[in-house]
Amino acid sequence: MTALERGARVTLSRVVEPGDEVCGRWIGEVGAPEAVRWLYGERERPRGMTDRRWAGLRARAARADPERDLELARSAGVGFVCPGEPDWPAQLDDLGDARPVGLWVRGRPGLRLWALRSVAVVGARACTEYGAHMAATLGAGLAERGWVVVSGGAYGIDGAAHRGALGAGGATVAVLACGVDRPYPRGHTALITRIAEQGLVVGELPPGEHPTPSRFILRNRVIAALTRGTVVVEAAYRSGALVTARAAQRLGRFTMGVPGPATSALSAGVHELLRGEAVLVSDAAEVAELVGEMGELAPDRRGPVLPRDLLEPDAGRVLAALPARDPAGTEQIARRAGTSTDDAVGRLYELRALGFVERHGDGWKLTRQETAPVRADRGRC
Amino acid sequence: MTALERGARVTLSRVVEPGDEVCGRWIGEVGAPEAVRWLYGERERPRGMTDRRWAGLRARAARADPERDLELARSAGVGFVCPGEPDWPAQLDDLGDARPVGLWVRGRPGLRLWALRSVAVVGARACTEYGAHMAATLGAGLAERGWVVVSGGAYGIDGAAHRGALGAGGATVAVLACGVDRPYPRGHTALITRIAEQGLVVGELPPGEHPTPSRFILRNRVIAALTRGTVVVEAAYRSGALVTARAAQRLGRFTMGVPGPATSALSAGVHELLRGEAVLVSDAAEVAELVGEMGELAPDRRGPVLPRDLLEPDAGRVLAALPARDPAGTEQIARRAGTSTDDAVGRLYELRALGFVERHGDGWKLTRQETAPVRADRGRC
Repeated sequence: MTALERGARVTLSRVVEPGDEVCGRWIGEVGAPEAVRWLYGERERPRGMTDRRWAGLRARAARADPERDLELARSAGVGFVCPGEPDWPAQLDDLGDARPVGLWVRGRPGLRLWALRSVAVVGARACTEYGAHMAATLGAGLAERGWVVVSGGAYGIDGAAHRGALGAGGATVAVLACGVDRPYPRGHTALITRIAEQGLVVGELPPGEHPTPSRFILRNRVIAALTRGTVVVEAAYRSGALVTARAAQRLGRFTMGVPGPATSALSAGVHELLRGEAVLVSDAAEVAELVGEMGELAPDRRGPVLPRDLLEPDAGRVLAALPARDPAGTEQIARRAGTSTDDAVGRLYELRALGFVERHGDGWKLTRQETAPVRADRGRC
Repeated sequence: MTALERGARVTLSRVVEPGDEVCGRWIGEVGAPEAVRWLYGERERPRGMTDRRWAGLRARAARADPERDLELARSAGVGFVCPGEPDWPAQLDDLGDARPVGLWVRGRPGLRLWALRSVAVVGARACTEYGAHMAATLGAGLAERGWVVVSGGAYGIDGAAHRGALGAGGATVAVLACGVDRPYPRGHTALITRIAEQGLVVGELPPGEHPTPSRFILRNRVIAALTRGTVVVEAAYRSGALVTARAAQRLGRFTMGVPGPATSALSAGVHELLRGEAVLVSDAAEVAELVGEMGELAPDRRGPVLPRDLLEPDAGRVLAALPARDPAGTEQIARRAGTSTDDAVGRLYELRALGFVERHGDGWKLTRQETAPVRADRGRC
């Protein structure tokens, strides 16, 4: 990854709308640096692009200021990750031409590893109490089983799922449809701040960008691609959560639905999914069983690919603080490792993804094997 | 069907427990009359039967009184139907050696035709208000679409499904695990009497027999075999309704489940089914769509097999009373045909199964084709 490529992608992140496949194909063909040169140069529009679209892109490029974007991001504790970089979640490559040009990430490093053991829990904003209860219970149960809960940070089901994971001391990722420095919805400012501390807040849009209806819809493809599977908790017909579920299906991810009363309009969309290929799930154990089927790292164990001594120093310290027999709580591990609890949680989830540690209820312990068995370079999981 | 065969089967109905496959195989091999001679004679036990079982059968045969059984039945308005007779529902032959030796039927004739367009709606006795609401709504909606609702006459879901069908002026069949002259449960005496008037009460057991736990379970195979498909509305784990659903699956019938809250123990059994091969249904339209897929008579139309002039006189009178254009209500049709409303309902369902008439909401009218298109001799539907 050259600095030139990185810089070009920061620019393109400001210029190209999420999910623009025409631009995605063009960038794939000529490369990000050449695409940026083209945008600022005197050349004709690329083939397959209308004059109107090309003029729009050039106008946005003229206003772009990648230096300032990176500076803004840095000051807000936000990083930028490009395709091919070590922390890039390679599952996103499944999106083809609709792959994000890069991801803005607020929070600890480790997105790539987290994504390897992640499940999306999504649903209606105006959910019922039943839906909120199920989302929170699923979020907590998945976190307790060492799964990372991914959602959209919205009111209703999304928020309940994030809170459930946080409350269980677990890791959670909010994928926003706006700049990650800008909590949306505003009523979730505290929640999103907390997610950035204990988990990750990510998005395609550079600092300061607002959400729009189409950005909400296109954000959903990132949630679907990032995760092993998507659980829809409550969704009316034509709900955005169904867009995520259908994207997951197209991408070959697991699609799951939580049933509800047949008399509830907020379960009608879920039931429609369940009449198709989606699998009915009633609790976190059923979700973990399904996504773990193909997702569990065990079947691919072919010897240690990432040995302990290749771990980053922080992760190594947390690993050294882990008990071999009786599970220890996060705070105890953090104290022993000389790190904050939030940092310890992040590292524990990384180590979980790598197969070093297991979660048992509220505690963590070393897995039985001495060395980590996962092929950390696997893009698809 | 000889009188000898019929008489022998009346005797065997008193002697052989429902679903006894060893006896079923034996009767299939030697024939019912020979089996009865054997029971009363001096011969050795049939091959494959234990001494103990053989002694039990002979003791019951010694106490059997087929004349009295038929007399008891007649006085209670109950008939007896044998395999191979015109009113025998040939779908029951799919049960193989577990096929009933005969069926006791209380109510109008027409079981065979009714079964061709029937759906089972079953579920928990101790159901929730939600479950009762769904069962009643499904029962009514299926009846409105010209489907016969079959259930077990029990408290809870069964009763609600029967009542829904009755309330919509539809046809319904209760399959009992005891003598059909003996309403069970006692609290459903009025309901079962009403079903016998507007529909049918059927069972394998001769007059006066009591239900037992195993008879309840084995009754469920008759419900499954008789119908095109089984809908489970509410069922806890290990509920009897799941036995019906699994029997339906084994028999190649459609299996359907109504979802409920994942937090409800009474939906847990249904959700287990839905995680397998059962199809999620939220209303009667979805049930009719599914069972009609293979069940609709249209695909097999190969010219008129049962022309109008082969109809029984009562059915012919009801057919003559039907409007060709705007649907008429049951009472109006009954008045025109000079018959009771209950009789008219029975005949209308027969004519519906034969493709002569259509139901539209509360009314009935002639189908567009002049002659009936159904192969009335088809055993499997």
